[in-house]
Amino acid sequence: MVHNGPAIVLANPQMGENIGAAARAMLNFGLTDLRLVNPRDGWPNQRALDMSSGALEKMPTVQIYETLAEAVGDLQLVYATTARPRGLIKAVYTPRSAANEAYMRLRAGQRVGFVFGAERTGLTNDEIALCSHIIQVPTNPDFSSLNLGQAVLLLTHELFQAGDETPERILETGDSPPAPQEDFENFFKRLEAELEDGGFFTAEGLKPTIVRNIRGIFTRAELSLQEVNTLQGIVSALIGRKAAHKKAARKK
Amino acid sequence: MVHNGPAIVLANPQMGENIGAAARAMLNFGLTDLRLVNPRDGWPNQRALDMSSGALEKMPTVQIYETLAEAVGDLQLVYATTARPRGLIKAVYTPRSAANEAYMRLRAGQRVGFVFGAERTGLTNDEIALCSHIIQVPTNPDFSSLNLGQAVLLLTHELFQAGDETPERILETGDSPPAPQEDFENFFKRLEAELEDGGFFTAEGLKPTIVRNIRGIFTRAELSLQEVNTLQGIVSALIGRKAAHKKAARKK
Repeated sequence: MVHNGPAIVLANPQMGENIGAAARAMLNFGLTDLRLVNPRDGWPNQRALDMSSGALEKMPTVQIYETLAEAVGDLQLVYATTARPRGLIKAVYTPRSAANEAYMRLRAGQRVGFVFGAERTGLTNDEIALCSHIIQVPTNPDFSSLNLGQAVLLLTHELFQAGDETPERILETGDSPPAPQEDFENFFKRLEAELEDGGFFTAEGLKPTIVRNIRGIFTRAELSLQEVNTLQGIVSALIGRKAAHKKAARKK
Repeated sequence: MVHNGPAIVLANPQMGENIGAAARAMLNFGLTDLRLVNPRDGWPNQRALDMSSGALEKMPTVQIYETLAEAVGDLQLVYATTARPRGLIKAVYTPRSAANEAYMRLRAGQRVGFVFGAERTGLTNDEIALCSHIIQVPTNPDFSSLNLGQAVLLLTHELFQAGDETPERILETGDSPPAPQEDFENFFKRLEAELEDGGFFTAEGLKPTIVRNIRGIFTRAELSLQEVNTLQGIVSALIGRKAAHKKAARKK
């Protein structure tokens, strides 16, 4: 996350547990500017501390305000996270599109904040009117009310994602490097020969197709060198058993 | 969300609160197949019920299993949500890329599941080995441990997003439609004339630029018809005050 990370503003939060969960979610994604407007149970709050799993101790002091207007006074772009309000004309964004715009604005050095309303009542129209944009989370319309801490997590995750460059997929093979193609071929040619020897290819015409399909199983697995060696050992063990079976059969 | 929604599997969950939060997060995004492996405090669990805000009552019965192998037995694609494990070679995906693939597989009618480990210890290597893919959430490396309910929310949100078509931005103007261009022009020409009359344009050469900039303020606001009418009223009121000022000045 960028250094001048955005502010998370909780307007009239009721339960300390939710404030703590919000703080933990923030620090999970590198944010530390938490502002509270009139927390119902005062501040500091032991339940918030417990629920934050250490996040509140690691963050700068939480700022407390009496009004939302004061809490957002220094911000240059303010999002209200809420259901779509009636009677207010404001653009409504998805969390993802808001996060992408906010990220660009933060990178440009601007001060950005996200406002969340009280647990049961959400933001009032007067509070929403202080914000320039609205974020509405697309949800199941029959059960749409998100927990406050969960809503903060969803948004901070989207913000982190906006600037994150983690590859979509990584295959780490640890101590053993991915197998060079020739090691794989040595294994596969041997497997093919042993299968031929074992009478596996009953219909000669189908052999090329069957070989390709078996090859597909092993290439899809993206084998490490160690795994190719393990497969060589597996073939040896199975051949040995077959040989033992044959020997046993001869004895009978 | 698609109808054969994926299963959320909690392996050895400890706190009922987290199970309830997970259930709420699932139903927020339309998922209802919750499976528990050896919940520490048994099942049903009053704290889970309380924390779910009604979600558990609305979902089909939660299924309880003794082993993770049983819990994922019917699934065709199983993701483990965990930090990258040591000593296991498995592809690691971001939540978003996993959600996109899972969504395509669900649409194709396949049975998909996501496994989450116990609160403190996460998934064991034996549990991870039962899963085909790994999801690791990109987070702040200095404070990376997500709350269990939060982790479930993050993933169910990403799954919902994979199939969601909510526009990135909507501007709803409610009862008043967006202003037709000609209504806007009537207002703006009048404003310009009144400003001219009031001696606003002191440097004639700069007038075109200034007019364009003022126009920018109002076009950026994407005005509704009602708002254009309100602006007409504002101009009238301000002119009236100016006229009153002039009258007062003449009386002195």
